Amino acid sequence: MRAEEALRKISNEKPLVHHLTNYVTVNLVANTTLCVGALPVMAHAHEEVEEMVSLASALVINIGTLDPIFIEAVLLAGGRANERGIPVILDPVGVGATSLRTETAGRLLSELNIAAVCGNAGEIATLAGLAAEVRGVESLAGDAREAVTRAAGSLGVIVAATGPTDYVSDGERTLDVSNGHPLMGRVVGSGCASTAVVGCFAAAAGGADAEIIAHALAYFGRAGEVAAEGAEGPGTFEPRFLDALAMLAANSEGLDGSLRVKEVSG
Amino acid sequence: MRAEEALRKISNEKPLVHHLTNYVTVNLVANTTLCVGALPVMAHAHEEVEEMVSLASALVINIGTLDPIFIEAVLLAGGRANERGIPVILDPVGVGATSLRTETAGRLLSELNIAAVCGNAGEIATLAGLAAEVRGVESLAGDAREAVTRAAGSLGVIVAATGPTDYVSDGERTLDVSNGHPLMGRVVGSGCASTAVVGCFAAAAGGADAEIIAHALAYFGRAGEVAAEGAEGPGTFEPRFLDALAMLAANSEGLDGSLRVKEVSG
Amino acid sequence: MRAEEALRKISNEKPLVHHLTNYVTVNLVANTTLCVGALPVMAHAHEEVEEMVSLASALVINIGTLDPIFIEAVLLAGGRANERGIPVILDPVGVGATSLRTETAGRLLSELNIAAVCGNAGEIATLAGLAAEVRGVESLAGDAREAVTRAAGSLGVIVAATGPTDYVSDGERTLDVSNGHPLMGRVVGSGCASTAVVGCFAAAAGGADAEIIAHALAYFGRAGEVAAEGAEGPGTFEPRFLDALAMLAANSEGLDGSLRVKEVSG
Repeated sequence: MRAEEALRKISNEKPLVHHLTNYVTVNLVANTTLCVGALPVMAHAHEEVEEMVSLASALVINIGTLDPIFIEAVLLAGGRANERGIPVILDPVGVGATSLRTETAGRLLSELNIAAVCGNAGEIATLAGLAAEVRGVESLAGDAREAVTRAAGSLGVIVAATGPTDYVSDGERTLDVSNGHPLMGRVVGSGCASTAVVGCFAAAAGGADAEIIAHALAYFGRAGEVAAEGAEGPGTFEPRFLDALAMLAANSEGLDGSLRVKEVSG
Repeated sequence: MRAEEALRKISNEKPLVHHLTNYVTVNLVANTTLCVGALPVMAHAHEEVEEMVSLASALVINIGTLDPIFIEAVLLAGGRANERGIPVILDPVGVGATSLRTETAGRLLSELNIAAVCGNAGEIATLAGLAAEVRGVESLAGDAREAVTRAAGSLGVIVAATGPTDYVSDGERTLDVSNGHPLMGRVVGSGCASTAVVGCFAAAAGGADAEIIAHALAYFGRAGEVAAEGAEGPGTFEPRFLDALAMLAANSEGLDGSLRVKEVSG
Repeated sequence: MRAEEALRKISNEKPLVHHLTNYVTVNLVANTTLCVGALPVMAHAHEEVEEMVSLASALVINIGTLDPIFIEAVLLAGGRANERGIPVILDPVGVGATSLRTETAGRLLSELNIAAVCGNAGEIATLAGLAAEVRGVESLAGDAREAVTRAAGSLGVIVAATGPTDYVSDGERTLDVSNGHPLMGRVVGSGCASTAVVGCFAAAAGGADAEIIAHALAYFGRAGEVAAEGAEGPGTFEPRFLDALAMLAANSEGLDGSLRVKEVSG
């Protein structure tokens, strides 16, 4: 499935996307989900998280501000999502920075059936067992293309690394996405928001493959290109970016033609 | 009390409005409160929540991301607010979506003296015992007018349902409010923000009746109309909306004339 | 060190600034840090907070929505920051409003080695043992100049009070900063954001003295002046303010000449 079809399905079905996410970028994640055309919900109480995920069409897990209570909520929600067969997307924020993050990502990947992992180059390199430079939750270097291919192969899930060029791999096939704009990297939470869009597309498709994830990221990058026109900096870029996501979602006809997704040879 | 008088009192007295709210829209709720002219405070620790609410002129409870620790904070704060006689406003976010939400709203309504309940049509219909379609925290359908009248009658509180037309009822008298703009429904937290404005107006009035709540919602809707001019989408609408709330609060003379509040016949 | 040099160092070194902060303004704090040129990280789990602070160049503590679990995280992080010798900045939000806040600020000042305390006039007056009018987390009155001098003397740390004029004192020398714009006080979290900038500058300098803190606040105020041109209210001011922080950080040459920092005589 490509972007136009996914956005059309989201617009028609208004799927509920359940986010277990961090408190830094949660508002951007919620507004991004709504601009794409899906309905966001955030609920973490152990008493209700399984019941809420039972209403959802996808679960997005972002460990940006994890702690033991949060991890338990993730395991409960993820278990229920797996029982129901809805896609579970993982953003392993800060993996490699602390052992809690590295161990938690490993635990989630082993205990849950994750449809796709979306992170920055450093995080994905860490998951692939490659050297990476991570500073806190920011990735400073790393060969994203090799990282996604290796991580997808070893973890057996679809893996995406976002950056100036995004890479998506299912272990056999690797796609690159060259839509985007440098201002996206200057807004806190643009990575979290891109994973939210992946969650919305996976909700529409009822699952994840490399193609739909690449198209989710390409649509996200295309919105960044549109938003950058007229933005005077990262502050005014952010509201324009939400406008662009909403505008492209509402006028998706012909969108696929402006998305630059291509198969990486070899 | 109508909007002009309420805004004038808020401007003169700068009442402190204590919010126990969700972590998704808390920043918008705080900025909304400040733009209206009141002072927002968020404090939830069981060790201080009663002391903080002792300084406040109204308490706004929003259960959007509730959990047991939050509920205990709400009961402590609400109990103290009731002792002091300041108005307590409840936004029963997601009631009907999970049993934790439905039971918690019922518990708060039975254990606390709530001045007003403000929610979307689906939430209010749920409280009224009517059929409703709620998806996560979004209401998709429901007869808002019947819901507010029934809920106000059975619960014995003022009830407001926000939507394309807002309805407010005290069980005997029902008002409708037709100010507003469709972009308001496309920003995460506009419902939470409208309840915050109700809290500010109740703080000014020292309590809540159908008229003042309807005028709070009409002022809120009028700000949406002003903000929509020039907004290019939901992202750029949100900061313009805060500007409009602040501008109308600072220039409230004549505002009542642009508010469309009317009594619903029958 | 003055602003130009600090911003140049931040740009070159991209220091990680660890924030233990409140959930109301956390997104603004993170985006402010990124716009200044540093890398923000928020992590609070007791299981990782010491490991994360081991990667950081400064720790900023903001008690705006404190509770016992948060306080424990602060003590762990602060202890590790002190072992490593990185600067620890404290924003004692709401001190004077509740005993939990007053006691916690006192405990942090006695148990940790704090490099600088940054608050509003009422908070600093409270710490100095002077009469102050605090309403929730807003300061309504107080002689900021006397408060910083006295607080710095009695606490033995650098103290800054932000307001229409900012004052910074090390107990012997007191500086005032007259850059700024009234719209800054109408955005929730502008005080939190200014403390974040102080944290970034302290990270660059490897510590805090009155001069660098005054220059951090002057740069922050200068950004407010730039952002106010064209803003239509507090809502549209906020994204423009982030733009201005980023623009001045990227074009810092000559900035010191527009900063109004001067020694207070007597």
